[in-house]
Amino acid sequence: MRISSFSIHPVAVADPPIRSSYGLHSPYALRTILILNTDDGITGIAEAHGGDGSIAALNAIQPMVLGMDPFQLHALWSNWGKPDTSGDRSQTWMVPGENPRDARTRAFAAVEAACLDIIGKAVGKPVCDLLGGRARDAAPFSAYLFYKHAGGGGEGADAREDEYGECLSPETMVRQCRQMIEKYGYKEIKLKGGVLEPEIEIETIRALRREFGPGYPLRIDPNCAWSVETSVHVGRSLREELSGGGYLEDPTASMEGMAEVRKRLLAEGIDTPLASNVAVTGLDDVVPAWRTDAVQVVLSDPHYWGGIRNVQRLSDLCDALGVGVSMHSNNHLGVSMMIMAHACCVSPGMHFACDTHYPWQSEQDEVIEGGRVKFVEGAVVIPDKPGLGIELDMDQVGRLEERYNKLTYRKRDDAAEMRKHVDPAWQRILPRW
Amino acid sequence: MRISSFSIHPVAVADPPIRSSYGLHSPYALRTILILNTDDGITGIAEAHGGDGSIAALNAIQPMVLGMDPFQLHALWSNWGKPDTSGDRSQTWMVPGENPRDARTRAFAAVEAACLDIIGKAVGKPVCDLLGGRARDAAPFSAYLFYKHAGGGGEGADAREDEYGECLSPETMVRQCRQMIEKYGYKEIKLKGGVLEPEIEIETIRALRREFGPGYPLRIDPNCAWSVETSVHVGRSLREELSGGGYLEDPTASMEGMAEVRKRLLAEGIDTPLASNVAVTGLDDVVPAWRTDAVQVVLSDPHYWGGIRNVQRLSDLCDALGVGVSMHSNNHLGVSMMIMAHACCVSPGMHFACDTHYPWQSEQDEVIEGGRVKFVEGAVVIPDKPGLGIELDMDQVGRLEERYNKLTYRKRDDAAEMRKHVDPAWQRILPRW
Ligand SMILES: [Mg+2]
Ligand SMILES: [Mg+2]
Repeated sequence: MRISSFSIHPVAVADPPIRSSYGLHSPYALRTILILNTDDGITGIAEAHGGDGSIAALNAIQPMVLGMDPFQLHALWSNWGKPDTSGDRSQTWMVPGENPRDARTRAFAAVEAACLDIIGKAVGKPVCDLLGGRARDAAPFSAYLFYKHAGGGGEGADAREDEYGECLSPETMVRQCRQMIEKYGYKEIKLKGGVLEPEIEIETIRALRREFGPGYPLRIDPNCAWSVETSVHVGRSLREELSGGGYLEDPTASMEGMAEVRKRLLAEGIDTPLASNVAVTGLDDVVPAWRTDAVQVVLSDPHYWGGIRNVQRLSDLCDALGVGVSMHSNNHLGVSMMIMAHACCVSPGMHFACDTHYPWQSEQDEVIEGGRVKFVEGAVVIPDKPGLGIELDMDQVGRLEERYNKLTYRKRDDAAEMRKHVDPAWQRILPRW
Repeated sequence: MRISSFSIHPVAVADPPIRSSYGLHSPYALRTILILNTDDGITGIAEAHGGDGSIAALNAIQPMVLGMDPFQLHALWSNWGKPDTSGDRSQTWMVPGENPRDARTRAFAAVEAACLDIIGKAVGKPVCDLLGGRARDAAPFSAYLFYKHAGGGGEGADAREDEYGECLSPETMVRQCRQMIEKYGYKEIKLKGGVLEPEIEIETIRALRREFGPGYPLRIDPNCAWSVETSVHVGRSLREELSGGGYLEDPTASMEGMAEVRKRLLAEGIDTPLASNVAVTGLDDVVPAWRTDAVQVVLSDPHYWGGIRNVQRLSDLCDALGVGVSMHSNNHLGVSMMIMAHACCVSPGMHFACDTHYPWQSEQDEVIEGGRVKFVEGAVVIPDKPGLGIELDMDQVGRLEERYNKLTYRKRDDAAEMRKHVDPAWQRILPRW
């Protein structure tokens, strides 16, 4: 069995005007669908970050993938996938999917997922069963809350219903969370912070705790918006609210900053774990992050960490180090949803619910056959189907690709969007508070 | 596909009177052959340590294996395989395969290997291709030299030709090595030490270096026979000879002792890596061994480390820590030979040739069809066959099982053998020198 065709389909997905410390999401998120075919007629699919950077890396890996045996992933990795270690691979300044230094790793990840889909279909087994079997049968996800402006995403004929309305206050965030939990059944809650004054974000977390109680662990992620001082202040203020399965995610920039926050919180007897997907973005960051105690929960991602197997490797590595593992998310469609679910289910150390942006996308932009992936009590159950367990709806892929082709931008730029719609003078300043 | 039968065949394998710091090998080494069948007629095989302890653990795991889907190895591990952490899991006092604290891990490893053999046969792929594909196509092994008394192993009608004769001096060891390299093509050399006066063993390593040159990296393993002082003396004396891809293996007992040897050698500017399969025997030993700099090369083993996947996990963990990985060996037959070869080929971090006792066993005791596994320039090439790539010769298994049933001992006891044949007052004393 050899890979005989490799095709990529850039797609644009309507995305509501949600906020983070990077800025504002544009009306369309960019993603890339990868389709591999084998000479014996099996199709494997994957989903990757979008835009020119991702497409260039996928085009670059294509010659190595055409003709390869999909089982030989170690060889592909060692011949291609090594990350570029020439500079800053963190996500301090660049959003996930835009740092050119992990472009190779991300391209490998997409190919790996499609190869695992092929192998699963060839042998009649779900992807997770190819990787040692299930550490769990369903992948739990968290309610991923965002401060947002009014609007449902998309433009013109693509404009979408604004399901969650404007949310720029603690009260509206509680409403957003209630809606999301009622719809999906999530059992853990994540708030994307770094958007409003820290005192308002603290009050938002407190309001969520009052509303949902300690049975719903809470995490807040300002993407490095805070100074060490402010981070310690928030950690101190939310000592109770972030305990019991919660964490404080990337409060401040850099491994050194995180280590300092940790040290100062511990000195006050506060052991809220610090999580990161900004300072720590690859397997070789984990030991240094652990050694300096900068990070107690590493946020995996089957896309930029280099694939499902690398999430599993990370889980094993963290297990040996006594470090926690959770999962990061970007805007994504159903293919990534299943890649993330399989990665979670084969990673015994994944003891937190994973993040997902899936509630921010909608049925009308789903590219998988049969409509959106279903959640059962907040979790994605691994279906009894081979491979990733899904097929593409090529009409939908075509529609979203046509839309992509009409867009004027080819990379995610949340700061530009911020200047366009919110504040013409907006700059990303770290720390902002 | 479910596992429908589970059978174990204890076997006795003729073994020459080779020496180590544990004592003397008895005329027969004990091993166990595991055979699993599935309800759709596929047979998976594995080989494990021998004797009552191993058989008891295999009998204990049997009820969990019968009826299981061979793909669901994570579930089996989490329900069964956790090692006993109640006491000393090191191999300071007990030879590999005799410490009851890793009996569960060893039983899991045998079941995992047989399940991977089944999966490979079900999908028509070699085991290494099920685990991410080959980091290399052939597993390199080292020439494993032993001081030995005259005799080829076995007794009476089973007595074997004494291929290597008595080797209790540097000169005879050079001859042994020459014979072994001519026959198998090995490119690295390991000497089992801890048997003669350290000065004789130092002289043996020097004689090997003079004979084979620096193109053949050298390692010596006295299994903790030396004090810290003696270990440092040997490290100093063999500074040149153990450099360039060699290592000093378990010179002294305990993680603390190893760390002290390391510290003192480094203080003299000698950075010969210390290797261990005695102080470090499981994944949870690796970080402490690295943290204290006690071990720079961890010696994996797909048997007592808990299977092929755990060797792969160890390779990944060591890669993240910047620690080397090699492979330990016990007396074994062709089934274990292939388990070891597949484990090596799926572990990118395995940068040293692996150990094997295979030259000490012979064609007449091989249990695999078609005779012994072949070496090509010291390496075992992964055959283009599904699963482990071998089948059992059941006549041979029956013959070796019959022999086992006639033996009066059910565990490996090298000290008892030493008292019987060499010195009635012999005791294992650590450190001896
Ligand atoms: Mg984050
Ligand atoms: Mg050893």
